Amino acid sequence: MQLKNIIGFEYSAEGKVKVQSFNPASDEALDGHFSAATESEVNLVMKKAQIAFAKYQQLSGTKRGEFLRKIADNIEALGDTLVKRVMLESGLPEGRVKGERGRTCNQLRLFAQVAEEGSWVDASIDTAQPDRKPFPKADIRRLLVPVGPVVVFTASNFPLAFSTAGGDTASALAAGCPVIVKAHESHLGTNAMISEAISKAAQETGMPDGVFSSLNSDGYQVGQLLVMHPSTKSVAFTGSHKGGLALHKLAQKREEPIPVFAEMGSINPVFLLPQAVQNKGESIAQQLAGSVNLGAGQFCTNPGLIIIKEDKNTNDFIQNLRKAVAQLTPCTMLNKGIFENYNQKRSNALNIQAVQEEQAVAEGGTNQGLPTIASVDASTFIQNPALHEEVFGPFSLVVKCQNNAELEAVAASLKGQLTGTLMGETGELNTYSQLIAILQKKVGRLIFNGVPTGVEVCHSMHHGGPYPATTDGRFTSVGTAAIKRFARPLCLQNFPNDQLPDALKTANPLGIWRTVDGELIR
Amino acid sequence: MQLKNIIGFEYSAEGKVKVQSFNPASDEALDGHFSAATESEVNLVMKKAQIAFAKYQQLSGTKRGEFLRKIADNIEALGDTLVKRVMLESGLPEGRVKGERGRTCNQLRLFAQVAEEGSWVDASIDTAQPDRKPFPKADIRRLLVPVGPVVVFTASNFPLAFSTAGGDTASALAAGCPVIVKAHESHLGTNAMISEAISKAAQETGMPDGVFSSLNSDGYQVGQLLVMHPSTKSVAFTGSHKGGLALHKLAQKREEPIPVFAEMGSINPVFLLPQAVQNKGESIAQQLAGSVNLGAGQFCTNPGLIIIKEDKNTNDFIQNLRKAVAQLTPCTMLNKGIFENYNQKRSNALNIQAVQEEQAVAEGGTNQGLPTIASVDASTFIQNPALHEEVFGPFSLVVKCQNNAELEAVAASLKGQLTGTLMGETGELNTYSQLIAILQKKVGRLIFNGVPTGVEVCHSMHHGGPYPATTDGRFTSVGTAAIKRFARPLCLQNFPNDQLPDALKTANPLGIWRTVDGELIR
Repeated sequence: MQLKNIIGFEYSAEGKVKVQSFNPASDEALDGHFSAATESEVNLVMKKAQIAFAKYQQLSGTKRGEFLRKIADNIEALGDTLVKRVMLESGLPEGRVKGERGRTCNQLRLFAQVAEEGSWVDASIDTAQPDRKPFPKADIRRLLVPVGPVVVFTASNFPLAFSTAGGDTASALAAGCPVIVKAHESHLGTNAMISEAISKAAQETGMPDGVFSSLNSDGYQVGQLLVMHPSTKSVAFTGSHKGGLALHKLAQKREEPIPVFAEMGSINPVFLLPQAVQNKGESIAQQLAGSVNLGAGQFCTNPGLIIIKEDKNTNDFIQNLRKAVAQLTPCTMLNKGIFENYNQKRSNALNIQAVQEEQAVAEGGTNQGLPTIASVDASTFIQNPALHEEVFGPFSLVVKCQNNAELEAVAASLKGQLTGTLMGETGELNTYSQLIAILQKKVGRLIFNGVPTGVEVCHSMHHGGPYPATTDGRFTSVGTAAIKRFARPLCLQNFPNDQLPDALKTANPLGIWRTVDGELIR
Repeated sequence: MQLKNIIGFEYSAEGKVKVQSFNPASDEALDGHFSAATESEVNLVMKKAQIAFAKYQQLSGTKRGEFLRKIADNIEALGDTLVKRVMLESGLPEGRVKGERGRTCNQLRLFAQVAEEGSWVDASIDTAQPDRKPFPKADIRRLLVPVGPVVVFTASNFPLAFSTAGGDTASALAAGCPVIVKAHESHLGTNAMISEAISKAAQETGMPDGVFSSLNSDGYQVGQLLVMHPSTKSVAFTGSHKGGLALHKLAQKREEPIPVFAEMGSINPVFLLPQAVQNKGESIAQQLAGSVNLGAGQFCTNPGLIIIKEDKNTNDFIQNLRKAVAQLTPCTMLNKGIFENYNQKRSNALNIQAVQEEQAVAEGGTNQGLPTIASVDASTFIQNPALHEEVFGPFSLVVKCQNNAELEAVAASLKGQLTGTLMGETGELNTYSQLIAILQKKVGRLIFNGVPTGVEVCHSMHHGGPYPATTDGRFTSVGTAAIKRFARPLCLQNFPNDQLPDALKTANPLGIWRTVDGELIR
């Protein structure tokens, strides 16, 4: 396990400060004193990234794809050593860690495909019309080009899939951008192993030195220096609202402001429609309870809000939910800070007058989050901003509405969300068209009869909702469209054919989909 | 000519403050005392826009297209009355005004086509795989949806094509967003006529009341209130760096920050390569002089910087440029403020030691900008931030470089630009590949052997460079891709087919291009 910072193809431990990760199941320090990066190491990393960018952006999609596939291979080659370290650092069970590793490697290979296939650059060609009156039309061509070095802040809750070799890194590398990872203090060992796997893959596939680096940090300084460095052109972050917003504001203070794609969590409202509750209330209750406690509730898509229209079936449903929650097994949370934050936020919610605790698991081990369901009336919910905040962990609040107007008022009172869910019978949806219209404005993804947890990595996924769920709801952090975050259009006018990038050459040597005079062709 | 504010289908003149436009050719006030909007009128406008949005976003692309086409028809029906008023308010000659009217109407019809054709929503479908192991794959579909009410700040330099019914309005309406225009104080009469044409078109084609409004203002307050209003979801602006940045910062202070697409100008470097200067220096000099003085130099793509590698032909070239500039006829600038600002900025540049005035037209009429060419050595240019600022008007600075390294250093010292231009022979381009690589990072559009003025409205255009040319170089304000500014992805998971928007229904009733399981098909 590499204890130094990984600066391109070199290792560096200039500073005196060492950092360690802890086992959340025991609060014991884990082996490995990792070197926290210094300011001069940050500068070296960014200088290397800048130089690497000039070469890396010129490489073909096929070469970039090869690099991404090799990263996946190298991660798999780490075998159980990696799985064990992730489990120790995150408290996550083996099945979850192995599943997440699979997802991470599949994701790398999916972005390899995207890079290899090449159509993602949205090439567009308007052919010249030299005889057009009153003015001739020039030959105008456009494609997406990579923006430059991308700083990736790794997420606590996905030590693999949203971290060092996660979706942000994979999509930035696929786009042609060098990546600099700021390791998460909770999983320094995981980061070191994955970072070495990436650095090795870069060397094995002939990538330029500096295409990937990884720095450890003590506190915020390293992250701040990375965001402020003039060579940094984009930032990706998954984490708390506070953290994401701080980085976003910092990036706006730069001489050249840059985008920060911060995915900052959500309470993910689930609306239960009456016929569904009547017909399958018990199974919905079980589904929801499972989703609330999945990964100790530490998913950004955790269903933190369950909205129900009160009728004769409501009490039965809540009874079923209580039963299902009572049977849940508490899970170890990712770290002590997250555990303490969960207890604090959960208490804050439960201490609000009119909020009633419905069911909570009474006891758990070290740093285990206790699954909890509470309930409240719609008007208290609407008037109480604290209840609109995310309680990161296995907590969900049932909001009881008297009628459709209250359902709609609750929906209208919500801030931007990553997801919204409707549990209903197909036949009753038309009765709630107004509610659906409101929800479509509030969320990035609207689910019918499912749970919000489980974000499919695919072409059509949109994981990114209106602010404050993210800093920019126009982009996704999951799925192939995530590559678009790290590119910008470049237009080339009247260029000789041999000076054009392959994606824009008249003969279409890459065989990609392109818009030619407004028509898509390949 | 409507002197009141146009609030949806109503007229309103609640406030006491009246504003007037002036004829820049004479400094005389023009007829028409227009009512400046009050805070309560701003609130009424936004309330109407919010209500209109619910209906307007549901309309088919065909209906929106009909609306846009009717706007173009109504503008054309204004005939010479409009042309005369634009000429009086802008000082622009008849040919230019008629040309710009043509461009404006073509642009409206082009966005009508985009809305009607419908593929712009980037529909993507991942079909369900219920039997997939270990987890079934849900049906996931995604499309772009309009963001909501858009505030458009009209541009001084394009009273038609970048103003009330310009590209911002056309693309926002095509996307399904209501538009609120903040009229430019320089062309209040033009705005009133065009606004009535739009409002009439909305009524004639059955659009909801509030889909379009237009407010006059005295000072900044109306604009600020519009940007800060919670119902506003996006802002488009074309103008000065100061103005664009102020709006951008304001929008970041909102509880829900929103994007401001500000196109803030540029100095548009033109690099002259030696063989081209040797073979066709005289024609290049004439082309550049014409481009510098086009529209009194009041284009955001005005070539404000001419970079040349010194050799035996340099003096001849500069001589040719001086001759060409001496023959230019000064033109009336858009308003007194712009004229005074031009003189100030031009003086500032000329007063810098080492900057040499090469040629300036000596005399002009009221508010006419005097075409001016100056020169400076590369190292002075690189070290002097003031020379990197736009001089809005018919001014251009020749920067003399000793060698390729200086050419590259000048390119590297540039801020983000809307355009860059290379004048060269095809055969010499390979010698300057490093320069070309640097320029591609600095600009939104790179032109070979042409002038930057003249921005084609087409599919492949990208009019938007890296900051500070714009607040967001990932988006264009010209061409069909401009519609993407006013939309965001929405993902629908597991929705019944009849509840999906037409663009996502399995049978593809709109016949649009869609990505289905990663493959583009129609």
